[in-house]
This record gives sequence, C-alpha cells and structure tokens, in this order.
Amino acid sequence: MALTDPDRLFPVDARQRHLARALYESVKDLPIISPHGHCDPRWFAENQRFPNPAELFVIPDHYVFRMLVSQGVALEDLGVPRADGGATEADPRVIWRRFAERYHLFRGTPSALWLDHSFEHVFGLDVVLSAETADHCYDFIDAKLGAPEFRPRALFERFGIEALATTEGALDDLSWHRAIRESGWGGRVITTYRPDAVVDPEFEGFAENVAALGEITGEDAATWEGYLNAHRSRRAYFREFGATATDHGHPSARTENLPAADAAALFAKALAGACTAEEADAFRGQMLTEMARMSLEDGMVMQIHPGARRNHSSTVFARHGRDKGFDIPGRTDYVAALKPMLDAVGMEPDLTVILFTLDETAYGRELAPLTGAYPALRLGPPWWFFDSYEGIRKFREATTETCGFYNTAGFNDDTRAFCSIPARHDVARRSDCAFLAGLVGTGRLREAEAFDVAQDLTYRLAKQAYRL
Amino acid sequence: MALTDPDRLFPVDARQRHLARALYESVKDLPIISPHGHCDPRWFAENQRFPNPAELFVIPDHYVFRMLVSQGVALEDLGVPRADGGATEADPRVIWRRFAERYHLFRGTPSALWLDHSFEHVFGLDVVLSAETADHCYDFIDAKLGAPEFRPRALFERFGIEALATTEGALDDLSWHRAIRESGWGGRVITTYRPDAVVDPEFEGFAENVAALGEITGEDAATWEGYLNAHRSRRAYFREFGATATDHGHPSARTENLPAADAAALFAKALAGACTAEEADAFRGQMLTEMARMSLEDGMVMQIHPGARRNHSSTVFARHGRDKGFDIPGRTDYVAALKPMLDAVGMEPDLTVILFTLDETAYGRELAPLTGAYPALRLGPPWWFFDSYEGIRKFREATTETCGFYNTAGFNDDTRAFCSIPARHDVARRSDCAFLAGLVGTGRLREAEAFDVAQDLTYRLAKQAYRL
Amino acid sequence: MALTDPDRLFPVDARQRHLARALYESVKDLPIISPHGHCDPRWFAENQRFPNPAELFVIPDHYVFRMLVSQGVALEDLGVPRADGGATEADPRVIWRRFAERYHLFRGTPSALWLDHSFEHVFGLDVVLSAETADHCYDFIDAKLGAPEFRPRALFERFGIEALATTEGALDDLSWHRAIRESGWGGRVITTYRPDAVVDPEFEGFAENVAALGEITGEDAATWEGYLNAHRSRRAYFREFGATATDHGHPSARTENLPAADAAALFAKALAGACTAEEADAFRGQMLTEMARMSLEDGMVMQIHPGARRNHSSTVFARHGRDKGFDIPGRTDYVAALKPMLDAVGMEPDLTVILFTLDETAYGRELAPLTGAYPALRLGPPWWFFDSYEGIRKFREATTETCGFYNTAGFNDDTRAFCSIPARHDVARRSDCAFLAGLVGTGRLREAEAFDVAQDLTYRLAKQAYRL
Repeated sequence: MALTDPDRLFPVDARQRHLARALYESVKDLPIISPHGHCDPRWFAENQRFPNPAELFVIPDHYVFRMLVSQGVALEDLGVPRADGGATEADPRVIWRRFAERYHLFRGTPSALWLDHSFEHVFGLDVVLSAETADHCYDFIDAKLGAPEFRPRALFERFGIEALATTEGALDDLSWHRAIRESGWGGRVITTYRPDAVVDPEFEGFAENVAALGEITGEDAATWEGYLNAHRSRRAYFREFGATATDHGHPSARTENLPAADAAALFAKALAGACTAEEADAFRGQMLTEMARMSLEDGMVMQIHPGARRNHSSTVFARHGRDKGFDIPGRTDYVAALKPMLDAVGMEPDLTVILFTLDETAYGRELAPLTGAYPALRLGPPWWFFDSYEGIRKFREATTETCGFYNTAGFNDDTRAFCSIPARHDVARRSDCAFLAGLVGTGRLREAEAFDVAQDLTYRLAKQAYRL
Repeated sequence: MALTDPDRLFPVDARQRHLARALYESVKDLPIISPHGHCDPRWFAENQRFPNPAELFVIPDHYVFRMLVSQGVALEDLGVPRADGGATEADPRVIWRRFAERYHLFRGTPSALWLDHSFEHVFGLDVVLSAETADHCYDFIDAKLGAPEFRPRALFERFGIEALATTEGALDDLSWHRAIRESGWGGRVITTYRPDAVVDPEFEGFAENVAALGEITGEDAATWEGYLNAHRSRRAYFREFGATATDHGHPSARTENLPAADAAALFAKALAGACTAEEADAFRGQMLTEMARMSLEDGMVMQIHPGARRNHSSTVFARHGRDKGFDIPGRTDYVAALKPMLDAVGMEPDLTVILFTLDETAYGRELAPLTGAYPALRLGPPWWFFDSYEGIRKFREATTETCGFYNTAGFNDDTRAFCSIPARHDVARRSDCAFLAGLVGTGRLREAEAFDVAQDLTYRLAKQAYRL
Repeated sequence: MALTDPDRLFPVDARQRHLARALYESVKDLPIISPHGHCDPRWFAENQRFPNPAELFVIPDHYVFRMLVSQGVALEDLGVPRADGGATEADPRVIWRRFAERYHLFRGTPSALWLDHSFEHVFGLDVVLSAETADHCYDFIDAKLGAPEFRPRALFERFGIEALATTEGALDDLSWHRAIRESGWGGRVITTYRPDAVVDPEFEGFAENVAALGEITGEDAATWEGYLNAHRSRRAYFREFGATATDHGHPSARTENLPAADAAALFAKALAGACTAEEADAFRGQMLTEMARMSLEDGMVMQIHPGARRNHSSTVFARHGRDKGFDIPGRTDYVAALKPMLDAVGMEPDLTVILFTLDETAYGRELAPLTGAYPALRLGPPWWFFDSYEGIRKFREATTETCGFYNTAGFNDDTRAFCSIPARHDVARRSDCAFLAGLVGTGRLREAEAFDVAQDLTYRLAKQAYRL
C-alpha cells in the first residue's frame, strides 16, 4: 500500500484541489535549495554507508526520540549517548522496535509525514511501521543502506539538491568541507559561520574559545579590535568553503549598539568571566550589530534564530547534554530588541538579515511590519516546531497581508535528518501551493500570478536571499 | 422546529462531512467521563427537583449573566445575590424574561449552542427562545423539572455519565459525597482536592484556614512538616471519596523548589501574614512542587489551572463577590515558571501533571513542546473561554503537530451548569471528529487511525490521564 | 478585463458561496458609516481636483510606499517629503512608474485588493498595473481626475457615505470643517477630538501646546483644574462641528486613577518638562481616565488606539518625520492596564469606550472577556495591519464566541486614502458575510439570524456605538 496520499496537504474542495495540484506539478521537480541545516559534512566527505535504520532515523533525531520520551521511554533505552559515557541500549534492532511499537504517537505530526515519505519514496517500503512490521521494515531499510545508490552522495544527487549548507562553529577547521572539495565530487555542500561559542560569554569555555580564535587567526583576540579582526578572518576562511551566510542562535533577539570603548570594556569583562547575566546578554546583543556591520563589509547574509530556552531539563542536560529535545520556545520580542541594530544598519539595501521566530505571535504583530518596512530585513520560513503544514499555513496567513511574499526568504529544512530533506521540501511546496490556491479561489490573487509566486517560494527567493 | 442542526460543527465539504459524521456516530454514545467540574454534590445526595428555569440556567451561570451585564443589565436584576444580602430580583419568571429578550446576544457563542442543545435534547422544547416565547419556554421547562425523570440522579443516568468529579476545598467535610455513598445510589460522583484556601497566603483567612486544617487532621499545621502532613492526610481523606486528582488555580504557573529550611521560613512568614506579594507568589509556587511530590507518593493526578486575573472589577467584587463573570485571562508564562518543578519531578513517568491555559499563545509555543518532551506532563483540553468549536479547533491545530494526540488528556466540561454537560461533550466530540476528518481529507491521517483516535479523544485518554 | 473577482473573499464551497453572496447582496448597498479615519477635511471644503495619480495613490499612503521601501527604494525617490525640505523626486509620472514596476510586491496584500478595486470601480480601468501599463494607467486616471464627477464631494456622494469622521488635534481651529458647514454642501463630514499633543508629556512642544490650549479656551491651563476645563471647552467646540467621539493613540493601554492632588502634581511636573518616562506614562494613563469621566459628562464616545511603537527607525524619523510606515506594533496588555479606569467607570452603562488593538493575541485572551463583561466597553474592528480579509476572519473567530457580535462596534476604515473607502468597506462586508455563511453552514447560526446580523455588522452597530 502507498504510505502517503498523492494529494496530501491539498485543499479538499475539488476545484481548489485541482488548482493546488497544478501549481504543485509546476514546482515539484525544481532543484532543492537547502540554505540552512545541520547535516554532517563528513557524510559527503567519506561517502560511507549509513550504519543502520536506528542510527539513521531514531538516535540522532530529537524530533523523534523526544516524543517517545514524553510517553515514558528512557533516553538510554533509545541509544541516546550519556554524558558520562555510561551504558545505553546498544542493539539498533531493539531501539527500532521500541520506536515501531509507539509509531502511533506520531499520528497527526509532521514527523509521521516525513518518516512515511522517507520510508516510501526514499526506500520503497509499502507497509506501515508498527510493532508487527518492525523487523520487516528494519531489514528492508538496512538492506537498502548497503547498496551504493543509498550512499550519501548518491542520495544527494537523487534528491535533486542544488546547494546544501551545513553549519559549523567558528573554530571548526572545516576539514570535512576541505575533503569534499578535494574529492572532486561535484555536489555543492557549503558551510555557514556559526560563532555562538566565541560570542556568548555564557558558553562553556568562552575565554578559551576566544583564545583559540586568536591562535587560529593570528590576531590578538584578547583586545576588542583584534577579536573583531579574528571574526573577519574566520568569516573569510568560511567563505573559501562556500559560506554565504552566518547564523546566530541567541536566547533573545536583543541587539545593542554601544560606543566602541564601552563594547571593548564589556568584552574585557566577558573574557575575565566577570559579566553578570545582564552584561552577557548585552554583549551578545552588541555582537549581533558587529556581525551585521561585517556583513555589510563582506556581503555575508546574517541569520538570527532567537527564542529557544535551551536545555530546559537540568536532569536531561546533566545526563545527556545538548540537543536532546528539551529546548523550549519562549516569548520573544523583536520591536525593542532589534532597534539598536536597525538604527545602525536597517536601512542599508545591500544588507540582508533574515529573522526567524519560535513565537508565532510575532509574525503578524512584529515581524511582518518590520520586514515590510526595513530594506535590510527578510523574514525566514517557519522554524522547528512550526516547520509543518499548520505552521506554514499560519505563517502565510499571518504575514502575507503585511509584508507580501517578496520580503520572505523561501524555505529552510534546518535538519540533521538527511533522508527527511525531500519530505520537508515537499511539505513546504504542497503547503504553499495549497495557500496560493486558496488566494486564487477567493479572488485575492490571479491564477497566472500564483504560478509565478510558486516558483518564487520554491526556488528563487531562497537563492536570492542567501545569495546562492 | 429543531433547535440544533444534526450536522452542526461538521465540515461543509460533502465528503468531509460524510466522514466526520461517521466518526461522530462511532463515539457519540460512549459514556461521558467528566473528570473536572463544579457540579454541586448536594444535587445527587438529595436528589431534589431543580427549583425553576431561572435558577437552573441563568442565576448561577456566569457565562450567561455576564453577557447580559455587558449590555447594561444590572446583576441585581438577574437575581445574582449581593454580598451585603441586599435585595435582588426575586421573581424567576421576570429574570427569565430579561434573559429571553436578549437571547440574540448569544448568537455565535457556545452558550447558544449549549442552551439550545439543553432546551431541545434535555427538555424537548421546539421553539427558539425570544421575548415572545419566554413564558412558553419557562412554563414548559418548569413543568418538566417537576417530573421524576428530571431529578438530578435520573438526568445523570440519562446523560450516560460514567464518572463525574466535583471540586471541593481542602477543609470540606465531604458530607454530600458521604451522603451519596451512603444512599446506595450507583452513580459515580467523586471529589477533587482543591487546596487554594490553605495554600495561597493571599486567600481570605489563610492563617485561620491552615489552623482549621491542623485541627481536622490532628497535625501540627503551624510547622512546615506538620502542614505538609496535614495535606497528606486530607488527600488520603479525599481519596476515600473517590478523588483521583488535585486541582490548583493560581494566578500564574510559577513553581519553586526551595531548600526545606527556606520553604519552612516562608511558610512561617505566610502564617504570620507577613509575606510580600512576591513572597506569597513564591510560596504558592513552592506548594505546587510539594503537591507534585505528594502526587508521586500517593498517585493523585495534579491539575494546574493558571492565568485568570480573578475579580477584575472591584465594583462587582465588592457588591457580589467571586465568580461573577469578571475573571479575565492574562498572559501566562510556562517555560520559566514550571522549570523548578520540572527539574524536581518532570522526568518521573509515574507522575501526571495536567496543564491548562487561558493564554492560547502558549499552546504551540510552550505547552506542546513541554508536554511533548516531559513524561510527567499532559496537556489539558481547551478551558473556559476556549471550550468551544473555535477553541477546540485552534487547540488541535496548534498542539497536535508538536505533542501529538497522546500527550493530551481528553475532554473536561469544567462546568457548574449540569444540564450543559451533554451539550459540551457533544460539541467536543463533533469538533474533534471534524478535525480528524480534516486530517484524513488532507492525507495527514489514515481513515482507520481516525476512528481509533476518535475513541481515544472521547473516552480513553480522559480515563487514563485521570486514572479513572 | 475585470481587475477584481465578483465573488472575491467568499467561501469556495458552492453552497457556502451561494449563501455568502446572498448575505452580501443584502448589505452591499447600505450607506457607508465611516466613524474613524484620517481624510483631509480640506478636500471637501475646497472641492478641488486631486492633483495626479501619484499624489493620490502613492505619496501620502504609508501602506503603499513602505512596501516599496522594504525592497530598497528610497523614500526620496517616491516623492515623500524630507524633514529638511531637501530635494525629492518631483515628477509624479516617474514616481508612478517606480510604483507600477513593483506592483507585484503587493500580491496577496489588502493594498492590492484596495488598489485594484479603486482602479476598476472608481476609475473604470481594465488593465492590470505593471511596468508596461504604467503610463496608460497614469494618463487614464489623470484624465478622470480632471472631470467634475471625480471631485471630492462628487466622489463622497457616489461612494454612498452617510457620515465621515476626520480626526483633528485639540488645537485645530476646525476651519475646514467650518468651511464645509458654511458651504451649504449636505455631506456629513464631522471631526473627532484627538488630544495627544496636549495630553502626552513626551509630545514635541507639550508645554507650548498646553499654553496654546489655555489661550484658545480662555482657561488657566497651567493649573490642573483649568487644564481639565480647557479640555471640556475644546470637546464642546468639537461637538459643534459634529464630533461624537474622541480618540487616543498611546503607546500602551495604561490607565491610572490618581487622587486629584497627585494628578495635579504630576501635571505640574509634566508642564515643567521634569517627568521621567515612567511619570509621563502615568500621566497619559491618568488622562485616559479623565477623558472617560468627561465622556460620562458630555456623552462623547472614547476610542483607545494603543500599542504602536511610533517612528521605529530613527533614520527615517530624522529624515522624513512621522507616519512614514515605520510604526511597529508591540505586545499590549489590557487586563492590568485598564483596571484603574474600569474600576472608576467601567460599570457605567451610559459610557462607551471602544478598544482597539495591534496585538491579535489580546482578542480572545483579554479583549473579548473584558468587552463581554463591562457595560462601558465595546470592541473596535481589526485595525491597521489587521484591516484585511485574514485580519477580519481571525478577529471574528477569536472574539465572537466570548463577546458575541453585539459588543463589537461595526467597521472603521481608518484611512487617509479617500478612494480606498469603498474598497475597504467592501472587504469588510464580504469578509463578515463569509464568516456568517460559515456559521450557518456549521449549524452555529440560523440563516435568518445571519441576515439580521449582517445588517448589524455593516450599519447598525457603527451608528449605535458612535452615536451617529
């Protein structure tokens, strides 16, 4: 049986569905632009087989394992590594069965759509995953993974990816990216400059990280000027490996624009480990404005991903570390927070700052009015928990009337689950086509315009916004 | 004429409607689980007739009378008692006419749906209430109320209620519950432990209430340990009368997890009436964590109902007291607020804490991510102003993609309007079936799964979450 | 070709569409009540031709030019005046071409709907605006503007406007309103009392403005009592020119109800320019309560328009001044903010305070519960960024279930774009009819009731709320 409905996510009204399908047909085969995500460049450098279904679909994917945890399964029992190196479930088949037995938990979630799409369209499975079919599905997928056409580079090509950006920390030597480049393989896998560890005074080992930054770049990173120059140097290094963008994941969207002497003093305090929480926050805010200024110099696009309260459970963080499904969004203000940066550089037409949010209330109230006015701003797609059919629908309904389509930045998959990339882009394409069909059906857009906009949302806007 | 449309709340598209109707048919006759509400246990203890239509439908129902007040009718003119015992309208027929003349005010509200449903399906009325039909409707309902089959126990049975939880304060002797038990009647009416008056330092008579708690339980409630033991004792007493749950109505969701000595000191200050507003808030927060710990010991499910700014109008509060339709929701934070409690007990799979909200923005941003990760958490149904078609739709649309169906807790009617119970559960069943039909129609759920989930949402999840 | 779809904004389902169309037919020709807006009374006093298409549609309309700015066009290049009087583009045809070339930016926005409606139904254009058609459209509209039937008064009559309220500052001599009255023309153009410049200590020239207020009224506006009397005097003067309402645009909804001596002391401090930001905010809050008390005395309806962070870009404000598309909404609290005023006058059935918001999250959580309880409150229509199809839909979905239809206040166009008035009212009528059809289709409203409510929403409620 088919795991996915060929008309999924289209409107139910027959005429609307017909138009949505036609719009989708016109964009479904366009290349994938993936300008922001967390795939491991090592996959494409080494091109080894993915080890097994559990390590591909369950163990690394916090979307998947947190749902199992929420219903009482221990992280250890799903093979998620412990911080102390203690024992966890080692048998991938056992982990897979625990997942399969609880597959009904994902009913109605995008994870179910993505997983079914991968099972069916990437691997060719035709049975629904369940306790009964767990072993069959495991064996079926595992066998495929051994075939050459399921190696990372082959999948990259099969998926029709035109460009894939990964994300690396400022201190990363980008050796896997170097290896990809030196391999002669033609796939466009580029990096993104993510300096959180050398920008956030509360990051573990901040002072050591900054020292390392100085060493790598040959700058005197203990001084404010040297520190900024070290960033310039690393940004240039990242650009050698294709980077067109930087990325900033802060607890809030706060920006500052302090006089240089004050910024330098704050930096010294941060290096000395003497910042209060408020000062650390101010320093992060200052660095967003510094990064925006550097973007004006070097042309890199700046992404701001604020609002996640990281590692909410102290228990889980102590036992398993970061990125374990316990990052919880909170209210996020943009209007006051961004003003210092926008007063500094917001009217620059040559700058592109892409804003993301985990607080949907900001879409219509703050982000659409801001991006619908400042030339330096673009609005990023629905992110994380909102990368879904309802998330995309609410995003379009809340923002289009104020900032239009052309202040948005296309789609991001933002994933570390490589096999979900086609599924995620497919959901976005379908959801956008459904939305466009609704506009045409209610006389808010002409049909010919809808076909044009569908191309923009699927392909052009992401390429333009990310300068790819 | 029929007062209610047999296809009400179903999607308008013919195929969608067909499926929604089939789903509804499969669950409409399931027993009602009512695990949280405010019915008066005395009704079932005494089994007397309800006095008249005004006292059944208007005077005690703040949903109804506040709408009339909002259009200029005085509370006194609706028979709502005054705090000073002063005169109010005494003629129920006059009150009923005032209500009937303004029945158009309820157009488009769930109150209209519930009232029409009660009029038609509980009482058999077939004319729309209005100024013209006021007397006819009054006489018709009043005559029915005199018949034995309209006594509380007969209605309880006719409504198909499998379990009904009322809510009593910690100091309540539960005599009506005792009377129900001793009457030999088989209806399952259980209590719920609601300790606000002995947990909130700002509650009228807090110190006296705590002293009374000590007396009732024989514990030295003037000490922190004795006070906690007195709670343990009352919880056990409530469990004797069927209680499986506690309920906590705080202005915010704030929790604390203080060292015992600090908690004891705060308790002493609270007893002495010396707490600042901030300290009172901290103490309430500490007690949520204490209650969660006791729930781990004794297995009672914990409900948190935060976010109402109670008695917003000083005028109305001074003249008429609590629960007069002037409780207004405000913004409510859960992410920072719940962290102390969750760090203490959030990863316990044997604990169940059910979270409610009056701030719909928290659904997708905070509550779905929290309940979709912590095993101790479940997400309660849309509450109060959001117990409605649109409220349920927005709840499902905002939460399902992140926490799925299985981290939710079925439906609550939360009502003191007994005759509205079938109507409210009917609205919930129809709204959920409409939502499920939409998921199937857009390829996000298989049809067979939808029938299974419909059973879960209507019956199983409430029973499981409340351990009934 | 037709620029607008005759069935625009109606539901796509055939039966729903049929009903929505019938509802719309029953209200589409009702007179326009425009009780709040920013048209220039001079137009109707002088009845001169509008100069050219650019000055009619682009240069004064911040909805239009901010979208062009957001994509990198300079305000100067659109002819928007500079604060320093410096040169800007002077050729209206060049400005029009810049607009036309970028007309695709408005796809999916209400601006596109309004513009196309004006082009087609006011001017009779039948080609879509674009780079190619720019000159044709310019010449076509420009020629019409020269004809007598396109003069302001003729259009006013053609639009079917029964009453149009403009907005003037407290110090305005209302000479254009006087000229309208003295002209003998029968159009009902009335003023509205907007005292921000003499109420907000942070307004440019506050002390001078208050001094001028004293001079105009002959009151000693340097004293608290004299200042309040000066307001009373101006309110009476505005009422001579038809005013039935006052309007207040504050950054927040904060109100205060200070003892008279404290208020007087705060006023003295404000006059002396010695208020802190917090004190200035408190003074504005005090003045809302004072204005509400005066409304009880003189029967004027009070409008509160809070929540815009004005002039967000310092660059744009310095270069071009106010109202340049850089007013950004922010989170707005109503529950705590309004309590002092509501405790003072909220239960008065003879007072009408109309609340607006730019924070849609307040609709269901705060505004519907407040207006569904307090007799003095009414809920204004979706405002500014939310005056749109989606905005109206979300407004109705979020508020109707709690406060019903009868605590709302009909539609406002709130525009300075005269030719968009029919379009805006048309969008509101269609959107409301679509919503009502949905209620009928899902059994939440009877069909006959829907026709009655359609009249209320289109005509009666605005007349009643604004006492017109």
